[in-house]
Amino acid sequence: MEKVARNVQSDGIIIDLDGTVYKGRQEIEGAAAAIDYLRSRGKRLAFLSNRGNISRTMCCEKLAGMGIRVEAQEVLLTSTVTAMYLSEHHPGCKVWVLGEQGLVDELLLAGLMLADEPEQAEWLVITLHESLTYRDLNMAFRAVRGGARIIATNADRTFPGDDGDAIDVAGMIGAITNSTGREVEIVIGKPSRYMSEAALRLLDVPAERCLIVGDSLESDIGLGKASGMQTALVLSGSTKREQLEAVKDQPDWVWDSLADIVDYL
Amino acid sequence: MEKVARNVQSDGIIIDLDGTVYKGRQEIEGAAAAIDYLRSRGKRLAFLSNRGNISRTMCCEKLAGMGIRVEAQEVLLTSTVTAMYLSEHHPGCKVWVLGEQGLVDELLLAGLMLADEPEQAEWLVITLHESLTYRDLNMAFRAVRGGARIIATNADRTFPGDDGDAIDVAGMIGAITNSTGREVEIVIGKPSRYMSEAALRLLDVPAERCLIVGDSLESDIGLGKASGMQTALVLSGSTKREQLEAVKDQPDWVWDSLADIVDYL
Repeated sequence: MEKVARNVQSDGIIIDLDGTVYKGRQEIEGAAAAIDYLRSRGKRLAFLSNRGNISRTMCCEKLAGMGIRVEAQEVLLTSTVTAMYLSEHHPGCKVWVLGEQGLVDELLLAGLMLADEPEQAEWLVITLHESLTYRDLNMAFRAVRGGARIIATNADRTFPGDDGDAIDVAGMIGAITNSTGREVEIVIGKPSRYMSEAALRLLDVPAERCLIVGDSLESDIGLGKASGMQTALVLSGSTKREQLEAVKDQPDWVWDSLADIVDYL
Repeated sequence: MEKVARNVQSDGIIIDLDGTVYKGRQEIEGAAAAIDYLRSRGKRLAFLSNRGNISRTMCCEKLAGMGIRVEAQEVLLTSTVTAMYLSEHHPGCKVWVLGEQGLVDELLLAGLMLADEPEQAEWLVITLHESLTYRDLNMAFRAVRGGARIIATNADRTFPGDDGDAIDVAGMIGAITNSTGREVEIVIGKPSRYMSEAALRLLDVPAERCLIVGDSLESDIGLGKASGMQTALVLSGSTKREQLEAVKDQPDWVWDSLADIVDYL
């Protein structure tokens, strides 16, 4: 059912994780084998995810548990790229985190410092926080009232939780912006250029020699189109084939899953 | 320092609580005596507060602890008036609460029913929730995604907490509206007409024979002006005398505290 029956001509392959490589705690059938095959063909790989509440190490451990071999330096999460952004543009700045340990780990690895008190923070970094309490919200509120600017790993409204769709980073963001009257200055997540630039830098391959494979028309295909990459949509995640009909700028390939890539190399 | 040295001509007196009768857990000096004096003069009293996370019973217990004698039926909190609104306009509707037990108590007293599952709720009622968790936010998110309309007891951004200003209902509201893309349909809190109408109904006195006494130009004086009551600002709470200079429609009286009322009756 691919749109064009031609071969992928790419040296670098950017692979989305959620809905493309795994779903929940389960590998999507054939993903591990496809990734091994891409390596055997000498492709450079980057794994790109809008997840901002985990670190690369945590992500690789999760993948290893599903039998998928990925190195931390091949992974770009929004936690990673947020930390990169702050350390490049605001080196040594003090941050306050409304989010989880994975984000904190990435920020510290990038050489940033956690403020001791919210009022001392120059930036408030917001990501998904699945164990947040009123106190966490209030500390973040105090950081912004004290002058901290707001950066968010991503602004997704919802993610697929164990009991169906669950409230995502947009909830954490709304709590702070609506109570302080301040806006988020930077959202790092796909389809932003922050993510595509980080991926291209990691792969060291020109955009036109890159393919992005993902399950989201907006995040993955959108990012690929905006930066001049080749694009492949997989139907193993959040997008159904019917949704493609309304799309003007079609992806170059449409596959049932990542496993199909081996037929196009 | 009163604007006009004339006597109050009122049968009904509406008294704000926070910043007018008490501050935190402390009576504002002279408040209890002033309230007793008003009773001795045969005035009808209504105590009006934007607090939506406590019940009238809890409020009266707090007042009693400061030596202030108030009956539950003299109190109108936004929890009370939200419950009145829903039971009048949507009798027997099923609600989901993002908030505390005090609000739940008022809703049940008004004959409303709590939904067993968020998806069954017709209304999501939001108020301050000082012990909220991610799970509470997610259940409220699910209620709205399942079709529940949103009503908020109030939309205050901040309240004076023990460690300074703390995040208020606007935070809880923003989490839900920003993640669902849905808006709050009704905000009950002062200076809305819901609160003034409830107070006038309780007092059974025409607006022009009522005086409202409060510490907020926007909530209390604003409510009084909008509904044709006499108005008295007290400087014992959130408003400083300098802020009055910019105000076009001045309150009828400006007092240091509620205790001053005895000189004007």
